[in-house]
Amino acid sequence: MGVLVVGSMAYDSVETHAGKVEDALGGSATFFAIASSLFAQTEVVAVVGEDFLERDLERLRARGVGLAGVQRAAGRTFRWSGRYGRFFESRESLVTELNVFAEFDPQIPAPLDEAEFVFLANIHPGLQARVLDQVESPRFVAMDTMNFWIDGERPALLEVLARVDLLLINDEEAFSLAKCGDVQTAAARIREMGPDHVVIKRGEHGAWLFTGGRAWLTPAVPLDTVIDPTGAGDSFAGGFVGFLARRGHIDLEAMQAAMVAGTLVASYCCEGFSVDRLESIDLDALRTRQRVLAGVVGPLDVVV
Amino acid sequence: MGVLVVGSMAYDSVETHAGKVEDALGGSATFFAIASSLFAQTEVVAVVGEDFLERDLERLRARGVGLAGVQRAAGRTFRWSGRYGRFFESRESLVTELNVFAEFDPQIPAPLDEAEFVFLANIHPGLQARVLDQVESPRFVAMDTMNFWIDGERPALLEVLARVDLLLINDEEAFSLAKCGDVQTAAARIREMGPDHVVIKRGEHGAWLFTGGRAWLTPAVPLDTVIDPTGAGDSFAGGFVGFLARRGHIDLEAMQAAMVAGTLVASYCCEGFSVDRLESIDLDALRTRQRVLAGVVGPLDVVV
Repeated sequence: MGVLVVGSMAYDSVETHAGKVEDALGGSATFFAIASSLFAQTEVVAVVGEDFLERDLERLRARGVGLAGVQRAAGRTFRWSGRYGRFFESRESLVTELNVFAEFDPQIPAPLDEAEFVFLANIHPGLQARVLDQVESPRFVAMDTMNFWIDGERPALLEVLARVDLLLINDEEAFSLAKCGDVQTAAARIREMGPDHVVIKRGEHGAWLFTGGRAWLTPAVPLDTVIDPTGAGDSFAGGFVGFLARRGHIDLEAMQAAMVAGTLVASYCCEGFSVDRLESIDLDALRTRQRVLAGVVGPLDVVV
Repeated sequence: MGVLVVGSMAYDSVETHAGKVEDALGGSATFFAIASSLFAQTEVVAVVGEDFLERDLERLRARGVGLAGVQRAAGRTFRWSGRYGRFFESRESLVTELNVFAEFDPQIPAPLDEAEFVFLANIHPGLQARVLDQVESPRFVAMDTMNFWIDGERPALLEVLARVDLLLINDEEAFSLAKCGDVQTAAARIREMGPDHVVIKRGEHGAWLFTGGRAWLTPAVPLDTVIDPTGAGDSFAGGFVGFLARRGHIDLEAMQAAMVAGTLVASYCCEGFSVDRLESIDLDALRTRQRVLAGVVGPLDVVV
């Protein structure tokens, strides 16, 4: 039932209303793996530079995350820096240094190639496809992508989309991919591109699951204080896929519960910089917070 | 249990992806009254110009709306024209001609001054206060406002806010009024300004009810096609207040059901230009659509 994630490990410098961090542990695979490891054994395939700190690898190991697939390459680790608006109404990317990530060629060593649940984080769709070439017979493959690939690598993206079970994507990217402006239409068009299931994330407005021609909203957890939303999408994906792996079967009920798992995990991610808050939680914390989530929506089947 | 609304009756010219209408029946009081009349006897106080068509008054009468408080003044009716972006991501006001509305001085003739439920639509807060001076002992007063008054007439707005039970407002306006960027904080600050209850509308993302220090989300109805959202907020308010008047008591359960009523009515408003779709519905239609709404949210109390 293992989970394999292929993506980035990075150092992020982030500024929000709550403060500033420099070279903080980040990257899609990092956020995903810490979230997923709450539910299932999770293995990372990624590349780090010579400057990547042993103590940061240790933070992942402490969560039980397997690092046999993490290559160390000559050069510096991938770095991203960004700044959010006062109320997170905007996000400005200041610096993106690919560094060792520019030459990343994911190799899936045995026995990681036997993973049953695979998450292709936001990397070049050509690389996502090469990961799929190397995994033997995954039961469930989910992927993410971004506007950079939607705009610039559409043919390669469509090829890999046709091979996955689930696309997890935010609303702006879904609109861009599907060339429309509402989530229902976007999801229908994306499902025609291949994935049986589509999850469209809308930040504080929650996330939608589209499967079998139907749709369900899972609201976000209302938070008193958002510190830094960086990584929330990957944390959501980690909670979602990790939960499915633990549940061990894939049906509507499992997917709906996975939406709740992803939502809860993502909420913690936003409450700290980097993985600071995320790495401190356990399933008990999650279940306590779930009681808040379960009470967020007012009764809808009242008599009007 | 009658409902009184004081606001505008207007002619709107609107352009959306779905087409264009010229001088179509509009105005906050119009949308509110047609929505509210689904649930309760509703009376309008407004002003129209010499050009206001008898057949448009007849459309309101056909819904049972009382027009004894509608004054006809020399001059042209209030006109607004606007254009929406392809996906309703933007709204541009092209023309706002106050016309007879510029001199509007609301007079509440007997027996309308005995109304138990009052909605002060988006007009100058000084006029809203003068309406309250004229109603004898309303059981429940709700109001709306907009950025123009928040920015330009704050002292008058704060005075009237202190006298109402409920502020119904959209998220951008709530943030502007409360000088913050999240709905929880905005609602808490607005409740300190006077209203016991706050409803913050977020368009397709639903609406939040804040009362007694707690909060509940009512999601919007997912629509296949949005034709024109003009008037959706006033329709929501009409459904909300009209429902409360019909229920006849005001407690948390009634408020939560009123959120559903407002949500359903507003969804119909968006499916046509002007009041075209809104005036065609009845409670049976509403209850059928409610089954869609009740199934929108995935199960949240699952085991994770």
